[in-house]
Amino acid sequence: MKLSIEQSKFTELLETAYLAVSPKPTDPILGNILLVASEDGTVSATGTNLNLTIQKTTTANVEIPGNTALPAKLLVDTVSNVRGEISLEVNNQACIITHNSGKCRLIGGKPEEFPTLPEIENPTEINLSAKKLQAALEGTLHCASNDETKLILTGINFKIDTNQWQAASTNGHKLAMVVGTLDREYPALDFTVPGKSLGELNKILSLSADTTICNILLSDKTIEFSLPNIKVTSRLLEGEYPKINSLIPRTFEYEFTLLRKGFESALKRVSYLAERRQKVVKILWELEETQATLYTEATDIGDAVDSVLMKPSTSSNSENISIGLNIDYVLEGLKHISTDEIVVRCNKPTQPVIICPIGGLLNQLYLVMPVEIKQGFERISRENSKSSSEVTPDEEVDSSVGETAEPVSQTEVTTVENENPQALSNTETSELETPLAEANAKNKKSRSRAKKEVATV
Amino acid sequence: MKLSIEQSKFTELLETAYLAVSPKPTDPILGNILLVASEDGTVSATGTNLNLTIQKTTTANVEIPGNTALPAKLLVDTVSNVRGEISLEVNNQACIITHNSGKCRLIGGKPEEFPTLPEIENPTEINLSAKKLQAALEGTLHCASNDETKLILTGINFKIDTNQWQAASTNGHKLAMVVGTLDREYPALDFTVPGKSLGELNKILSLSADTTICNILLSDKTIEFSLPNIKVTSRLLEGEYPKINSLIPRTFEYEFTLLRKGFESALKRVSYLAERRQKVVKILWELEETQATLYTEATDIGDAVDSVLMKPSTSSNSENISIGLNIDYVLEGLKHISTDEIVVRCNKPTQPVIICPIGGLLNQLYLVMPVEIKQGFERISRENSKSSSEVTPDEEVDSSVGETAEPVSQTEVTTVENENPQALSNTETSELETPLAEANAKNKKSRSRAKKEVATV
Repeated sequence: MKLSIEQSKFTELLETAYLAVSPKPTDPILGNILLVASEDGTVSATGTNLNLTIQKTTTANVEIPGNTALPAKLLVDTVSNVRGEISLEVNNQACIITHNSGKCRLIGGKPEEFPTLPEIENPTEINLSAKKLQAALEGTLHCASNDETKLILTGINFKIDTNQWQAASTNGHKLAMVVGTLDREYPALDFTVPGKSLGELNKILSLSADTTICNILLSDKTIEFSLPNIKVTSRLLEGEYPKINSLIPRTFEYEFTLLRKGFESALKRVSYLAERRQKVVKILWELEETQATLYTEATDIGDAVDSVLMKPSTSSNSENISIGLNIDYVLEGLKHISTDEIVVRCNKPTQPVIICPIGGLLNQLYLVMPVEIKQGFERISRENSKSSSEVTPDEEVDSSVGETAEPVSQTEVTTVENENPQALSNTETSELETPLAEANAKNKKSRSRAKKEVATV
Repeated sequence: MKLSIEQSKFTELLETAYLAVSPKPTDPILGNILLVASEDGTVSATGTNLNLTIQKTTTANVEIPGNTALPAKLLVDTVSNVRGEISLEVNNQACIITHNSGKCRLIGGKPEEFPTLPEIENPTEINLSAKKLQAALEGTLHCASNDETKLILTGINFKIDTNQWQAASTNGHKLAMVVGTLDREYPALDFTVPGKSLGELNKILSLSADTTICNILLSDKTIEFSLPNIKVTSRLLEGEYPKINSLIPRTFEYEFTLLRKGFESALKRVSYLAERRQKVVKILWELEETQATLYTEATDIGDAVDSVLMKPSTSSNSENISIGLNIDYVLEGLKHISTDEIVVRCNKPTQPVIICPIGGLLNQLYLVMPVEIKQGFERISRENSKSSSEVTPDEEVDSSVGETAEPVSQTEVTTVENENPQALSNTETSELETPLAEANAKNKKSRSRAKKEVATV
């Protein structure tokens, strides 16, 4: 094998294949990248960890076709630190890389020992916009479980029904789902792809152009995602994914529209004073005041209150409602929503809370279970709260709070309105396109770990 | 205590004091920042870990003077996440912080328990440019030891003699020194300041203006660095610092000028193929070819060769010289030099190698001890090296190396010259302003750990 290639092109080729290489390969040959130079003037790089295989192809000036398996990290590090045109020449297991100020010799493995790409037998072919697939991965990967003992939950579940597709994930505490439409009708399909494989696919998709189509070939045990010059092949996870569609409430008593960033900032501000182990916030949705007020529990470090503007939908129940939520879960959900506005939907304080973006590429949904609220919230409220003084170091503090407290000052209201005067008057909200079954929160709640007080899905 | 202050100003105040707060304080009160609001309309924030104390003062709208000690991390996190004007009101140990969308209550410690600033008795006063002091810290901190069992080596040693000052550090393997002149004559002084304290001072100095003067008050056990509105006080390290000036050779047989970035890149390129545990490079300084060629030892992962242009001084010995160096140590030294060009000075392959910037704010010097070179370097050279084939997987590789090898191609020479046509013709080199004693490398070498093969200073 002998070829020459521009360094930046070669680095891109190698870095893509390297995404599939495990830092601690189970077999030494899997620590290599397989390079194959062909007579047609192309060179391909393949990396694999057996579950996931990534192959990228590019053009090169191939003098002598051939193949070689070279240590992945060493090859990537070496090539990414040279500049200009480089040449590779392989003799048996040694590869000499010559660049404009020197050269290096890498001792590789035997290319014939490198595993071959799994064959896709009788595949179903699906075409999806690469950008929509990426949006689906962004919206769901963060809810996949890391717990290898519940293997099926470490994946993203895909369902296809006629011309609809959905991707969903849950770790038992939170749930994410995206729904989109397909270019034509397909037979019903249900499969689960490892989250780790999709994490690497997500990185590749993020670099693809807006108009790129991802061609998917699905068989019983394997899925292949094809993009121009790149093939990503992954094993599927075996077993049945939990029926999560039935967990999502079909109707809602409350629906509030608010600005994502403002809500995120308020949550972050109060999070430092939330009880460290649990990070619970009580959110009081005040319908008449059109504001959501966030309270943390009073502890020995202190407590906090913060407010954001919100707009209830006209069909909302007219009574105020208080819901306890785990701050980290809500922030995690908001982090994976990219639109300016969101809608929060809920029913009773014990039932799931749904957060959806308003707008965006796909219909997206994030579900989080509420937390039971203990005494000790609303200490630092605008009411004089002398009665609940058991954790106060000094009673004078409470009376002084009563004087200075104004959860939302006029300044803040003005600021928000100035920034986005139309934002909160937009009542157009996204609707999940999938059939939703009644929430079954009570049934699920019995499974929750009582000690943690966080309900599970 | 009651005051109001703009958030960004308050954050800056707190973050400066926070630099001195230990993440794991030995006494709970040390986890707090002491705030003192005065009638004159100023507020100061003080953080301390007992070894280092940082106090910053700023103006505020003080309604009721007073003081409070508040949990440092919680206070910094909370204040850095709000916006606009904020107000603080303290009642005993609780502080209510009100901002434009809410408020929080922080429970603090007892301000009277907070340690008082150490008194500086009969101090010697020294004035230094803040930027020069910062350059001295940048140039020496990286050579201070992390080994707490040799406490004196964890500091930076300062020496003042008439109108000269020097700062120096060594961990036994490498040594850094900077030398500058003072505004007037001082009595002879010798003191060692903990590296950790100076690391925090360095961060503060990096934000100071070019013209700022740092006023230093030195007493037997304590040193205070004063900048506008900021006081940094540190304990001194007790004990005598090793006499390191005697380790620096006074004369040199060789002196080579080269571009710092080119040398750095070549070292990085070969480092991936250097033997992983030791990272030794053999540098052959080829005087007639005006190039330095870097070789790594041939191992089972491979080997590398790279070249950079250099210019020997006219007084240099005319014979080529090979020196073995630890790549990581050389890279570490280069990282803390900011000039485009450097000069490398050396004598015998067993004696210290000195690297100095050409130009810069202060006279700076980095000393690194050479490494004994074993067989197995220069395998991948431009000579046909069939004779040393014991680690070659295949002899054909060597013969092919002979054909493709050109350590510096014409392309590279042109590139370097185009980038900085005048760079290598500049022969003006910096001279250390301090009296230098003869190198005592042999004597020191006997102390080196023979197994590691890296000589110690």
